[in-house]
Amino acid sequence: MQLGIVGLGKMGGNMRTRLREAGHEVFGFDRDASLTDVADLPELVSRLDAPRAVWVMVPAGDPTRDTVHALGELLSEGDVVIDGGNSRFTDDAEHAEHLAGKGVGYIDAGVSGGVWGRENGYALMVGGAKGDVDKLMPIFDALKPPGEYGFVHAGGVGAGHYAKMVHNGIEYGLMQAYAEGYELLRASEYVDDVPAVFKSWREGTVVRSWLLDLMDRALDEDPNLDKLAGYATDSGEGRWTVEESIRLAVPLNAITASLYARFASRQDDSDAMKAIAALRNQFGGHAVKPEK
Amino acid sequence: MQLGIVGLGKMGGNMRTRLREAGHEVFGFDRDASLTDVADLPELVSRLDAPRAVWVMVPAGDPTRDTVHALGELLSEGDVVIDGGNSRFTDDAEHAEHLAGKGVGYIDAGVSGGVWGRENGYALMVGGAKGDVDKLMPIFDALKPPGEYGFVHAGGVGAGHYAKMVHNGIEYGLMQAYAEGYELLRASEYVDDVPAVFKSWREGTVVRSWLLDLMDRALDEDPNLDKLAGYATDSGEGRWTVEESIRLAVPLNAITASLYARFASRQDDSDAMKAIAALRNQFGGHAVKPEK
Amino acid sequence: MQLGIVGLGKMGGNMRTRLREAGHEVFGFDRDASLTDVADLPELVSRLDAPRAVWVMVPAGDPTRDTVHALGELLSEGDVVIDGGNSRFTDDAEHAEHLAGKGVGYIDAGVSGGVWGRENGYALMVGGAKGDVDKLMPIFDALKPPGEYGFVHAGGVGAGHYAKMVHNGIEYGLMQAYAEGYELLRASEYVDDVPAVFKSWREGTVVRSWLLDLMDRALDEDPNLDKLAGYATDSGEGRWTVEESIRLAVPLNAITASLYARFASRQDDSDAMKAIAALRNQFGGHAVKPEK
Amino acid sequence: MQLGIVGLGKMGGNMRTRLREAGHEVFGFDRDASLTDVADLPELVSRLDAPRAVWVMVPAGDPTRDTVHALGELLSEGDVVIDGGNSRFTDDAEHAEHLAGKGVGYIDAGVSGGVWGRENGYALMVGGAKGDVDKLMPIFDALKPPGEYGFVHAGGVGAGHYAKMVHNGIEYGLMQAYAEGYELLRASEYVDDVPAVFKSWREGTVVRSWLLDLMDRALDEDPNLDKLAGYATDSGEGRWTVEESIRLAVPLNAITASLYARFASRQDDSDAMKAIAALRNQFGGHAVKPEK
Repeated sequence: MQLGIVGLGKMGGNMRTRLREAGHEVFGFDRDASLTDVADLPELVSRLDAPRAVWVMVPAGDPTRDTVHALGELLSEGDVVIDGGNSRFTDDAEHAEHLAGKGVGYIDAGVSGGVWGRENGYALMVGGAKGDVDKLMPIFDALKPPGEYGFVHAGGVGAGHYAKMVHNGIEYGLMQAYAEGYELLRASEYVDDVPAVFKSWREGTVVRSWLLDLMDRALDEDPNLDKLAGYATDSGEGRWTVEESIRLAVPLNAITASLYARFASRQDDSDAMKAIAALRNQFGGHAVKPEK
Repeated sequence: MQLGIVGLGKMGGNMRTRLREAGHEVFGFDRDASLTDVADLPELVSRLDAPRAVWVMVPAGDPTRDTVHALGELLSEGDVVIDGGNSRFTDDAEHAEHLAGKGVGYIDAGVSGGVWGRENGYALMVGGAKGDVDKLMPIFDALKPPGEYGFVHAGGVGAGHYAKMVHNGIEYGLMQAYAEGYELLRASEYVDDVPAVFKSWREGTVVRSWLLDLMDRALDEDPNLDKLAGYATDSGEGRWTVEESIRLAVPLNAITASLYARFASRQDDSDAMKAIAALRNQFGGHAVKPEK
Repeated sequence: MQLGIVGLGKMGGNMRTRLREAGHEVFGFDRDASLTDVADLPELVSRLDAPRAVWVMVPAGDPTRDTVHALGELLSEGDVVIDGGNSRFTDDAEHAEHLAGKGVGYIDAGVSGGVWGRENGYALMVGGAKGDVDKLMPIFDALKPPGEYGFVHAGGVGAGHYAKMVHNGIEYGLMQAYAEGYELLRASEYVDDVPAVFKSWREGTVVRSWLLDLMDRALDEDPNLDKLAGYATDSGEGRWTVEESIRLAVPLNAITASLYARFASRQDDSDAMKAIAALRNQFGGHAVKPEK
Repeated sequence: MQLGIVGLGKMGGNMRTRLREAGHEVFGFDRDASLTDVADLPELVSRLDAPRAVWVMVPAGDPTRDTVHALGELLSEGDVVIDGGNSRFTDDAEHAEHLAGKGVGYIDAGVSGGVWGRENGYALMVGGAKGDVDKLMPIFDALKPPGEYGFVHAGGVGAGHYAKMVHNGIEYGLMQAYAEGYELLRASEYVDDVPAVFKSWREGTVVRSWLLDLMDRALDEDPNLDKLAGYATDSGEGRWTVEESIRLAVPLNAITASLYARFASRQDDSDAMKAIAALRNQFGGHAVKPEK
């Protein structure tokens, strides 16, 4: 079938490739002239036969909102917009409502797979009306991995991004678990060859996983991770997961600890620990370490 | 080659089977007459040709210590004892030293794989002298999974159990991450079909793993986990991991939170939260919930 | 000076009393006819000489918003509204802007002291323009405790509620620390008389505090806290504190753990721990506890 | 009454002074000739009339063990040794048993008060037999603060150090709560004068405490804590508290997070966070920060 894609960065560009390889007719728009197939959004829309489907793959927040609104002006009743970006799930109802006023359908799609997706397929979690999702199934089938898993219609509008958000929250916890175990093994005098231990875990253990495979790959490239600083950024989904734990009163101790570990990794010096040092000095006369 | 196994429970019995299927000559001893091949330890030892190897697969602590000591009386210079149980890594040096006095070698083997090991193979993390490990390689090769992973000689005596302990600590964190995500999805009004979301994650996502496959399997059997109480026990390895974090000053926030979540799951009522309720009542006149 | 108070509940009513005892002329309005001094807001405003000051002490959210808007219709240039309720700090800018359009000033006041405030004074953290705060100083002086502490002009609009929010976040952490220590002492076989230990800590220790005094008082009344369930509610400030930690990327491990402990205390059974039990059963054949 | 003190450092020396000011006859021994009253332990013991009492105030572990054993050789039936140092509670039973063989009593005393104790008194938590404790009451009365609190006979041998250990665990949590609140206030754009907020909290608030007074004092001396690094050491009691949480299966989320925050504060770079960075780079092609 035909699909328009807006945004041809690392993700959008690879998805265009995968879809074309599956035989779909894809028109992509990007502000970068070296990537784009069409000059602008009106041309993109004009290339598609009704009913049209346009996949938005631009940064969350204003860029996605602006694109959705611009498409709302160009599309017609029966068309569908899919937001495949990393939007907060709360944006989806707003986008859907905006487009519904023009008879345009809306699907939110959480997409996982990173740089490996083009080859292995992208896991898709989608939210929206059944009718809209059904229309897009040929596209979803081409994007998803070949097996029986990797796609879910999780619920109404917002459910796709919600499921993706929780996926990422879990991912934070999984990564932190491996990372903490790695640090403990490195700190201990008992184990000589930490990379060999991780490598061995890839078969037969309870902790085997794709992330473990990647950890092994990273250690093959740099056995002591000497080339990396202990500095980790975070994207929106981890923070939104914790915000949801607050809204819904669900204790997420491990996931939140994982997010906080990233925050702490980015601090050169911590005001909190300065306060601890100050208090210990006050009551116990404990020596403190002067600021460099 | 020949091997004696002491302890033919769920793990030891299945390992005997797997080893025999690989062509090894295995004699097993268990106090349970319906399981044992021999009448007692002396008979077990007498059946083996020197140099002998005896695999101990009994509960950690006193049972393992008693067995190691009893074998020390029966074995001869050049023989090797392997402790494949869940011993604390600190027991290994003691056992090795005891046997070394009699010229008997010692290997500690952390074993992962649970009820799936007999068919898929057992992941093995071993510690000990290279000479001892080399002698046992035919056994390790038969027990381990068929691929290139699943076995590591992690270091000297104690390294095997140490690596297994950290493996289990990581396992606690991985399980908690999935569990927290599950609870959040269940609590939210956005996602209709939580089991379908977990199932979809089995391909193409960052969170795919063997534990996720098992989670999907559990949800297939009981989609709302209605048959289970939210009650989780723990074995020694998780606790030892946290003890090691204290000894080595390594912050393990996520893993420790995972262990504490299990502790809390076993409390009907918490003294700590009674104290919180008491304090709130004292300063704010906040209503409290009376004890049932 | 004169002051109008809207809302004469536990807090507002006691504040009226304390202000009158200090010689101020206070008119209070409450929907409860047994508490109110005036029939309605217009009468309240009419009783005050310009420039007027009206203290709003109603629940946060819509009730406060509605009251602020109603007062905006009745007050005149040079008057001041003080929101002394537990509003989220983000509401303050909105209220201030609304009133500024009518030339009416706005102060947000975080108030601490609970049921003890009428006698001991209320700690006040206020935000707003210096001119507005200066006008209200006689009122603040009468409400605050008699010593040199207990009042701060923390910054512009919103700073008062922000400081109070952090105060409450800290309070969560302090309470949890005592509560955890209490539970550990109760669980241990070493200490015979846990209430006596807490009582002794009231002098000379590093942990002495007003909360500790209250803990001792609670244990005097109920030495084993038998009358209370381990069930703790939470109000908005703790949650907002964690939300701010996310917005500002500040790791708040202890405070967040304290909030999550309250969430967990309110669960009869936890979906997360059901998932842990399910996973353990899947991979290890571990016995599980069936749902009651 | 008479008392021998072994160890005249910051704590022991001040205690000697406080006891003498209360009219007791105190003989102190220290290896430092400028501090000691006597040449050696035999002389110390010879100066005391039977039944004798000797207070040991030396570092925990071997120094305390060696001193207890040396005193065991010198003292006689009916004498009492008090260990006022920071020993692990598990050492106490061993010391008591050793001395009991010679008819010498043993008391363990947890001592709080730091550099402020000489003037304000030392809070004492003691464990031991009632008869031994009764003999020492004149000494305890002179050391403790003047009010009705500050002393507890918490239980049998070990109870004093146990109560002190939990006191310190709570102290970790309290300090962390203030520290986290401090960091959040510093990070926020809402509050202009963070030290003024802390100062105001000293009266009328729920968070008022001696630690808060010290925090205010520290901020008076250095309003931005510019002179301090965010680096905090820890002593044994915090670690032992967490170890006890493991032994007794008591979840101590806030206290453990406080200890881990100190561990993290001492890391220049974290292996765990290197692993996180490595994983993010592997699956998402996320840019990483190279090691400096």
